[in-house]
Amino acid sequence: MQTTVTIRTPSRNALVDITEDVAKAVTDLGVEDGAVVVYVPHTTAAVTVNESADPDVARDILTRLSELVPPSGSYLHSEGNSDAHIKSTLVGCSTTLLVRGGELALGTWQGVFFCEFDGPRSRKVIVSAVGARREP
Amino acid sequence: MQTTVTIRTPSRNALVDITEDVAKAVTDLGVEDGAVVVYVPHTTAAVTVNESADPDVARDILTRLSELVPPSGSYLHSEGNSDAHIKSTLVGCSTTLLVRGGELALGTWQGVFFCEFDGPRSRKVIVSAVGARREP
Amino acid sequence: MQTTVTIRTPSRNALVDITEDVAKAVTDLGVEDGAVVVYVPHTTAAVTVNESADPDVARDILTRLSELVPPSGSYLHSEGNSDAHIKSTLVGCSTTLLVRGGELALGTWQGVFFCEFDGPRSRKVIVSAVGARREP
Repeated sequence: MQTTVTIRTPSRNALVDITEDVAKAVTDLGVEDGAVVVYVPHTTAAVTVNESADPDVARDILTRLSELVPPSGSYLHSEGNSDAHIKSTLVGCSTTLLVRGGELALGTWQGVFFCEFDGPRSRKVIVSAVGARREP
Repeated sequence: MQTTVTIRTPSRNALVDITEDVAKAVTDLGVEDGAVVVYVPHTTAAVTVNESADPDVARDILTRLSELVPPSGSYLHSEGNSDAHIKSTLVGCSTTLLVRGGELALGTWQGVFFCEFDGPRSRKVIVSAVGARREP
Repeated sequence: MQTTVTIRTPSRNALVDITEDVAKAVTDLGVEDGAVVVYVPHTTAAVTVNESADPDVARDILTRLSELVPPSGSYLHSEGNSDAHIKSTLVGCSTTLLVRGGELALGTWQGVFFCEFDGPRSRKVIVSAVGARREP
């Protein structure tokens, strides 16, 4: 029912396109019609869906997020990564995507991105099948 | 398992109340108890749940979002809609709602809103049944 | 398929750790492998997953959210809680968590938090099983 993808993020803040990994997980899990949960088991990272054609979109998202939640500020948490925790809550660590005919059903311009806010690191993403066919 | 709702958004930024459309999709899909995913297959739009009784709530949400992510800025993406992409990631393109006794189970004040950030346009929302009854 | 948790929030803004409540709901619902939806049926509250070890993380999240969405401003909604509605849309009222071997499968540092933005109040959280095993 679940499969784990491991990725290596390249920098403190990064949007890593994991569309192919999630699509492969859908195939491996044998989901035919329904949905998959894409879940990030970390508290300084997140998952989002956005345009993957132009990498400037991902750059603009990261830049604006860092303006809204600056890396340094009057934070209480002493590990120096409060900004990453806050961004994680704003973007979210769980999203549910659709599957049709055995394939991940994204919109034309959509890709799935792992959002790194406290890298570089090795990270995990768990893909879980939900939404079995209803019983007759 | 899935049904598509088509809507026409009225302006560049708009919150369109799609509660009735989602409720009808729940009935059409025959979901009895469980959940439905409401999925927006676009990268400059989103879906949210918030108060539908007073339309000023939706207006306040749109105004504050545009203050947090202004339409023009030092964005790299050249299509003039970076703000819309960023808002889409902040709000999210997928949400999972509950179903009880064959009906969409929202809280007293909750309505479901399609969030348009780069309209006016024709847009799609996909509603998918998940959460079949567990097998005995 | 669904169970309701009732909590009492302590102040206008608060992150209340509901990890134990959600874990108990997973056991009570008899979910073995799959997922649960954690759903907040309110429009001035939300649900998030973040670090539960150091309570300063929750404080930093609340502080930055209130800087991004101040309690008073040029809001139209006349009930004095527009900030709470906007925060609810930014964080989200629904998240989907994973279950493995009959237990809630969070990351090492993750806890589940009810986000109160217009308390103190009595509030409800609904936990619903999704993701039944696929039929053979």
